[in-house]
Amino acid sequence: MTEAADKSAGWVTFDPNLKIVDCTVRDGGLCNNHQFADGFFKDMYDTCVAGGIDYMEVGYKADKKLFAGSGCGPWKYSDEDDIRREVGDNEGKLKLCVMADTGRTNPSDILPKSESVIDMIRVATYIHQIPAALEIVKDAKQKGYEVALNLMAVSTVPDFELDNGLDVVSKVDEIDYLYVVDSFGSLYYEQIGDLIERYAKTGKTLGIHAHNNQQLAYANTIYAAINGVKLLDTTMMGMGRGAGNCPTELLVGFLKNPKFNLRPILKFVQNTMYPLSQEVDWGYSIPYMITGHQNEHPRTAIALRDSDRKEDYVGFYDEITSF
Amino acid sequence: MTEAADKSAGWVTFDPNLKIVDCTVRDGGLCNNHQFADGFFKDMYDTCVAGGIDYMEVGYKADKKLFAGSGCGPWKYSDEDDIRREVGDNEGKLKLCVMADTGRTNPSDILPKSESVIDMIRVATYIHQIPAALEIVKDAKQKGYEVALNLMAVSTVPDFELDNGLDVVSKVDEIDYLYVVDSFGSLYYEQIGDLIERYAKTGKTLGIHAHNNQQLAYANTIYAAINGVKLLDTTMMGMGRGAGNCPTELLVGFLKNPKFNLRPILKFVQNTMYPLSQEVDWGYSIPYMITGHQNEHPRTAIALRDSDRKEDYVGFYDEITSF
Repeated sequence: MTEAADKSAGWVTFDPNLKIVDCTVRDGGLCNNHQFADGFFKDMYDTCVAGGIDYMEVGYKADKKLFAGSGCGPWKYSDEDDIRREVGDNEGKLKLCVMADTGRTNPSDILPKSESVIDMIRVATYIHQIPAALEIVKDAKQKGYEVALNLMAVSTVPDFELDNGLDVVSKVDEIDYLYVVDSFGSLYYEQIGDLIERYAKTGKTLGIHAHNNQQLAYANTIYAAINGVKLLDTTMMGMGRGAGNCPTELLVGFLKNPKFNLRPILKFVQNTMYPLSQEVDWGYSIPYMITGHQNEHPRTAIALRDSDRKEDYVGFYDEITSF
Repeated sequence: MTEAADKSAGWVTFDPNLKIVDCTVRDGGLCNNHQFADGFFKDMYDTCVAGGIDYMEVGYKADKKLFAGSGCGPWKYSDEDDIRREVGDNEGKLKLCVMADTGRTNPSDILPKSESVIDMIRVATYIHQIPAALEIVKDAKQKGYEVALNLMAVSTVPDFELDNGLDVVSKVDEIDYLYVVDSFGSLYYEQIGDLIERYAKTGKTLGIHAHNNQQLAYANTIYAAINGVKLLDTTMMGMGRGAGNCPTELLVGFLKNPKFNLRPILKFVQNTMYPLSQEVDWGYSIPYMITGHQNEHPRTAIALRDSDRKEDYVGFYDEITSF
């Protein structure tokens, strides 16, 4: 353990291949239907640049036909024109990515990389959708993008299914990054470690996307970083669906890599995220703990938090644990 | 890692020697000067009994002469009469403990065990106070109590000092339990692991008391439990000084040991702790993250949170990191 600590003190802190992917606009947007105030996106972008963040996820690449009239803000679709209006040609080190949900994305909405400011397409998929996801993956790679595959809700996937799915994934050269995604915030470090071992067998560079239902998003992310995972998802002040994510500011403070700069991130958190947190409900609370412990989708807890009985922990516990 | 997961799935969950010490009244009392509402203590006690908690810490055993006129509530002193008024003779499985701060405790205030409902004395000490602490330890053991030694602020103790201190501790048979205490909430799992290894060399049964400055109190506590630590400190809804502690409800939900019962704990959290959290400031916030990252005492962050600039993260960061 002492040896591991010495090792991590060296390479985790300074490894230039360790990268932060800030998902605030994408995952945080699930808390407010991607309806951010004017100026939010540009401030967020400037903060990522100043903070030395490696990737900023600008939103979803959702099929407008499927979401017509849903009242979603522009970052549900992440049109090229909308992105360029905010970031111009994005000339700098910060890379941009979008999330393409399998079954909700029309690959024809994704331009060739030569015509886009987007650098990476992240394809989100449930285990049973992997064949459909791979169609988006191959299309995106052929168009010239970096490509990540985010396998959601892995905590509910039986090992046998998972290993078969990973075997398929391992044979797809078009996948650059493979993500461990704890959608329900139900995993703790030993389980993360077990998944890292399984995923590493694919030979892919790994990423982690954690949720904070058990106050473990940051803990699991640093555990993953120390155990070889290279892409680390975060959100400003942890803003993300339900219990939210690993806070960008916490991870930047931990990593100490000189490419990161905490102060501009704190400024954005203070001036923009904190006021937003007083209007929009996200982050750890007991109902999310309960769904996390039960390894369930947080939708029931989100509904409770959106009702007039948001602190009825016992009533909710009784409902969730009833037969 | 898979092997460890298999192992932990077995023994962590069911090991009857794994015990929860709820410190809400003692550590949480630091947030409100131990001024709890009428009925709080008894509800807390009943909740611990119903929840299967192993130990409840009733407060400090402070020397009244040193704290005269400080406006502290009764659980700063934990007089025998005050405890008995709430719990009678405490006939049941729940054990009671008090904390004796080295330099603030008069051993003559501690009755012989035969005259007391208290089961365990926890002696809190900084590294340089160990010789003074051992006087309280030996007195308490001679009087018939279980005795724990809580070595505070270990994150600031050089390894050389620590190993010498632990060597002294290892020779004192009167110590039943030795605590890893992360007073500043600055440690992550590898550092906890390193400390567990060092502390284990004393041959003592170990405990852990974590703070939540980096959202790691629960993560570090379950890591410790899986790595051989037996006494696990928690507080209801994490109520404790500054960023607070490992929440009792989170740990009880994780351990799954049939002796624990989450529902009465959730009921107390909902009806008593949540309303209290709207009046008294505790728990993770950015200023505590900053002192945690800096491995500093949280007193400056506590002062900030008690001022009219409690969300001035950047100003506070500039102060803390100025030369």
